[in-house]
Amino acid sequence: MHLDSGHPLAAGLTHDSRLIRAYRGDRPETTPVWFMRQAGRSLPEYRELRVGTAMLDACLTPAMASEITLQPVRRHTVDAAVFFSDIVVPLKLVGVDVEIVPGKGPVMGAPVRNNDELEALVSLDPAVLDDTLSPVIEAVRLTVAELANIPGTAGPTPLVGFAGAPFTLAAYLIEGGPSKDHMRARALMHSDPVAWARLMAWCADVTGRFLRAQVLAGASAAQLFDSWAGSLSLTDYSNSVAPASARTLEYVHDLEYSRDGRTHGVPIVHFGVGTGELLKTMHEVGADTVGVDYRTPLDVASRRLGGTVPLQGNVDPAMLFAPWDVLEKHVLEVLRRGESAPSHVVNLGHGVPPDADPEALTRIVELVHSR
Amino acid sequence: MHLDSGHPLAAGLTHDSRLIRAYRGDRPETTPVWFMRQAGRSLPEYRELRVGTAMLDACLTPAMASEITLQPVRRHTVDAAVFFSDIVVPLKLVGVDVEIVPGKGPVMGAPVRNNDELEALVSLDPAVLDDTLSPVIEAVRLTVAELANIPGTAGPTPLVGFAGAPFTLAAYLIEGGPSKDHMRARALMHSDPVAWARLMAWCADVTGRFLRAQVLAGASAAQLFDSWAGSLSLTDYSNSVAPASARTLEYVHDLEYSRDGRTHGVPIVHFGVGTGELLKTMHEVGADTVGVDYRTPLDVASRRLGGTVPLQGNVDPAMLFAPWDVLEKHVLEVLRRGESAPSHVVNLGHGVPPDADPEALTRIVELVHSR
Repeated sequence: MHLDSGHPLAAGLTHDSRLIRAYRGDRPETTPVWFMRQAGRSLPEYRELRVGTAMLDACLTPAMASEITLQPVRRHTVDAAVFFSDIVVPLKLVGVDVEIVPGKGPVMGAPVRNNDELEALVSLDPAVLDDTLSPVIEAVRLTVAELANIPGTAGPTPLVGFAGAPFTLAAYLIEGGPSKDHMRARALMHSDPVAWARLMAWCADVTGRFLRAQVLAGASAAQLFDSWAGSLSLTDYSNSVAPASARTLEYVHDLEYSRDGRTHGVPIVHFGVGTGELLKTMHEVGADTVGVDYRTPLDVASRRLGGTVPLQGNVDPAMLFAPWDVLEKHVLEVLRRGESAPSHVVNLGHGVPPDADPEALTRIVELVHSR
Repeated sequence: MHLDSGHPLAAGLTHDSRLIRAYRGDRPETTPVWFMRQAGRSLPEYRELRVGTAMLDACLTPAMASEITLQPVRRHTVDAAVFFSDIVVPLKLVGVDVEIVPGKGPVMGAPVRNNDELEALVSLDPAVLDDTLSPVIEAVRLTVAELANIPGTAGPTPLVGFAGAPFTLAAYLIEGGPSKDHMRARALMHSDPVAWARLMAWCADVTGRFLRAQVLAGASAAQLFDSWAGSLSLTDYSNSVAPASARTLEYVHDLEYSRDGRTHGVPIVHFGVGTGELLKTMHEVGADTVGVDYRTPLDVASRRLGGTVPLQGNVDPAMLFAPWDVLEKHVLEVLRRGESAPSHVVNLGHGVPPDADPEALTRIVELVHSR
């Protein structure tokens, strides 16, 4: 099948939703809220459904991926679904030997440590994703159909598509799995800039196609996650990483829908952890909204972005373990600081911790919606 | 035994060393250089010596701790020895059930998760360290005696004393071991500020006594490591952490020696990882020199500190895995940027990775000393 099917984007259906309005820089009466990793281990219904199914199998079984994506929308009535997947899914589908090991994370069968291994990797043609992404496309379609009618929500709930940024993928590929400070990846960046650029471009094409497929299948927005960009200096990020992230986002920049006689792009959100000093560059690679981690107050982030960029964030996940009165005060403070940006989507400043009480998330949604 | 023995500080013997001059803000002809974690797993002679001895036993066996501290000075002819120990050593010596598990790090027998556990912890009297620190004191004395005459070095080599900052210790105590984002610790900080302050004050007294003992026994400088401060916002650091770090440093502020008719304090260095946005506050808690991690260029760090603070750092440990020409260029760039500070001690921007080639460290020392 071909990804560019010529059908109008389903994104148009959610044009007036709180989420998409806020991502466009508008301020809906009610501030939208969702949570990174809301679909996942914090929910008992998720843990039950996942029994006996490996992570990547769950991601690639359309009915299961769709059901998991929907669970937190039903439970919390958040303003967005975020597609249940993993950043290494497109690596798997392009032919990389990768598994997700419980309690550890993605582990590569053969880390890329020399030129031959790099050549073997980049010889895997990203175009095969046109065929192999079908379970992802199917899962998105199932999800979008269901999201039209979730009880308690205000009309069709937008689905946020999801992909990892090239640096984070490259770090996994080089290190062979999760690593501290990603030292071999950062060493290659400086030791062999040509090899580094090839690897990053390949990662950009793979993850860009993954993101594009989700939008074409019905996602209303796209979020690029650079989980590990916070290990980089601003100079390294700007010179050696940002160009590949921009290349990734090129895969969704041309996707538009018509509404009220105008064409609209699909909003792009860009988020990283510990990236307070990178926010401006992360915006400039082609994002519309910048996700802010819990370390940087939203008014400070907005100032760094010139006061013109919609923000997403940044409730401290640690506060989910505090009593409600403390958490409530913190959420109100986040809302107050978010007023300094043109618009604000409430989210966490990092993913939902697996052992968080989902009840705390539901209460945050109620609080934000009651304001 | 009593720690305040009334003897003059051995620190006076190294007053004219490159290191201590640089820590005072002077610029010796040759820029001094040493490496965080230089005493440790990157050295084959260390790995050989440690066979069959657990980490905390090695720290508490004076002859072994001293020998390990001396190994990198002999091998690299660095300008400082850094005392081989672990930040949890004073916790162990005050009576906390803690072990260091290979490949994992410090693990607590009983994490502090409720008020009773906190009460039990703070009932351990820091004053018992006056007696139990004797293996540490003995190791420092043995080391300082040997450091007077290491072949290839320019006179007595200063010993840098070493302690963990209260936040990092508190995070271990609450989380029970290494953790990501230290969420339970940060939750307690906000949920129960009174309990948090008690815990932090106790940690400050324990780790402050550990640092003081090292200086009284002969260390020429003192470095406070706040490994995990980078997980904090500036507001949380300033309000809930900095006061306890200041309290720790009070334990060494009064230690002085006479030289040339004047009294001199023992220089204090303060370092954390990912703390580019906290540097000013980390200086203000009572440090003389600020250690800078590899993410923040030294000229940027110096500007943030008003251009008046000696800096230590910040060679990127990832560069140790790059070819020499790349590493050499990077070190020269670090030296160049370091010129923006009143003085500069070359170091890594994080600890030596266990799998780094020690030859790269020796070459850095040769390069820095040849300039």
